[in-house]
Amino acid sequence: MWIHSRDKCKVGHANLSLEVVSMNMMATTKDIPIMVNDCSGKMGRAVAEAAVEAGLQLVPFCLTGPGFGGRVLNINNVEVHAHEASEKEEILDKVLDRYPDVIIADYTLPSAVNENAEFYSKRGVPFVMGTTGGDRNRLLKTVHDSGVYAVIAPQMGKQVVAFQAAMEIMAEQFPDAFKGYKLEVTESHQSSKVDTSGTARAVVASFNKLGLSFDAEQIKMVRDPEEQVTKMGVPEEHLKGHAFHTYSLSSADGLVTFQFQHNVCGRSIYAQGTVDAVLFLSNKIKESSEKKVYNMVDVLRGGSMR
Amino acid sequence: MWIHSRDKCKVGHANLSLEVVSMNMMATTKDIPIMVNDCSGKMGRAVAEAAVEAGLQLVPFCLTGPGFGGRVLNINNVEVHAHEASEKEEILDKVLDRYPDVIIADYTLPSAVNENAEFYSKRGVPFVMGTTGGDRNRLLKTVHDSGVYAVIAPQMGKQVVAFQAAMEIMAEQFPDAFKGYKLEVTESHQSSKVDTSGTARAVVASFNKLGLSFDAEQIKMVRDPEEQVTKMGVPEEHLKGHAFHTYSLSSADGLVTFQFQHNVCGRSIYAQGTVDAVLFLSNKIKESSEKKVYNMVDVLRGGSMR
Repeated sequence: MWIHSRDKCKVGHANLSLEVVSMNMMATTKDIPIMVNDCSGKMGRAVAEAAVEAGLQLVPFCLTGPGFGGRVLNINNVEVHAHEASEKEEILDKVLDRYPDVIIADYTLPSAVNENAEFYSKRGVPFVMGTTGGDRNRLLKTVHDSGVYAVIAPQMGKQVVAFQAAMEIMAEQFPDAFKGYKLEVTESHQSSKVDTSGTARAVVASFNKLGLSFDAEQIKMVRDPEEQVTKMGVPEEHLKGHAFHTYSLSSADGLVTFQFQHNVCGRSIYAQGTVDAVLFLSNKIKESSEKKVYNMVDVLRGGSMR
Repeated sequence: MWIHSRDKCKVGHANLSLEVVSMNMMATTKDIPIMVNDCSGKMGRAVAEAAVEAGLQLVPFCLTGPGFGGRVLNINNVEVHAHEASEKEEILDKVLDRYPDVIIADYTLPSAVNENAEFYSKRGVPFVMGTTGGDRNRLLKTVHDSGVYAVIAPQMGKQVVAFQAAMEIMAEQFPDAFKGYKLEVTESHQSSKVDTSGTARAVVASFNKLGLSFDAEQIKMVRDPEEQVTKMGVPEEHLKGHAFHTYSLSSADGLVTFQFQHNVCGRSIYAQGTVDAVLFLSNKIKESSEKKVYNMVDVLRGGSMR
């Protein structure tokens, strides 16, 4: 029998010590069911694995794209059955019947963003949307109008979002603090990435407010694998999946330099951030929070969830 | 005839464009008289030079320590006469008579901090105190009780303070965001510096709040000149005056790394920060601000002064 995590909290006593409350929190983690769409994608699999490792209950169903239905995926010894969109209503019926408190993590395709968000919203299922692209305004409108709980963030790397937000706060509070300084920005991503890093662009916007004259077009994009290894220090095994960023600031007289780097290999930071977002959203649902739509900065403000 | 900078503002018209106001601000910079104690010290000289370069009016007198009185110092073609503490009352009478709007910048010795602050406060002369050490609580009490305008900051490197404050804000807003990460901190200073960097300790305190388990005792101090040059990249000509800091954060799985560096050579950053503090304090006096005692974070919040 599945016990509702909110009910389970009532078992405790009002005068519990902090330690016991914290043990209870950890115990309830296992009761959060997570459905990952699509577990057959690389990012979806990483999230599903991280969820199982964090003690969440991985739902043994997922929705997949055309041509991939019928497959059974083994995720850390959980057998997950993949179903195509044509079956989505009946699959979600089944999931909600067995796991009424389910939270969906969506890592699908930009082309599916709006359709999926509309589906989850219509069915009232809370979700964490890590998929990028699609019509973002329509996405937010869908979610706000439906009253569903959701975390929506194109960048799930929690620590990178923290750095980005810190630079933004510094820029707002200390305008022109770096006036007269010179800036250089270099970013390296897998050679298939055509556009400039969105994170680099966002950080540059903060640096502009800090008084640094710099155009996003001046960001140096490194896409050549040899240069990535020799100059940026990207490990060879991560040439096909990395996000390295270096921001170098120097005073006009050259006597003062600042350098900020965030170098990400693989998908674990995004998978861990997604699990944190699910834990955060689960807490907000339990609290019956009035605010329902969140981003990663909200998740960060929530502190450690585990 | 010396024109009071506040009166001068009244010459303008109420409907001036922003550009003209900004020109007026720049013009009045030249009217801020600055007395630097002690111009015969290395830091004092750097501040006096930066003040002249920024267009401030360097007062041709300064107070100096025992045995150094009577010297005449040439600072960017301004002859500054050094007088010992025994003459301080009559020298300040003379200065206030000729430069009633004078602001003092104090870079003397830890042993003189309290005595000097009491002297400036008693005479009601606004001052910027960059000197470290002394009894800091007594210093703050002296200044608050006297009602004098002052900027008091043991770290005048404005951009370093901005970085330090950004880390503090990040830690307050996003507690435990880096939980599970490992931290390494290395700092290099001239070999004569015995204690660990206070800035590194302050930043480590923020990292602790961000969930990083690290004791200030683990900060790696580099004091060997050879290691400073080969491993830290300190230019040989700055071995005797530099402050290099590197903070490296890495995720438990080693796939994500962050690195923050602030590397300062020489004294220009502190001299420029002091001039900014003087310009900030001058504005506060002109505004007859109720708040009278400030630190470098207040100066940073004030934005660019030039």
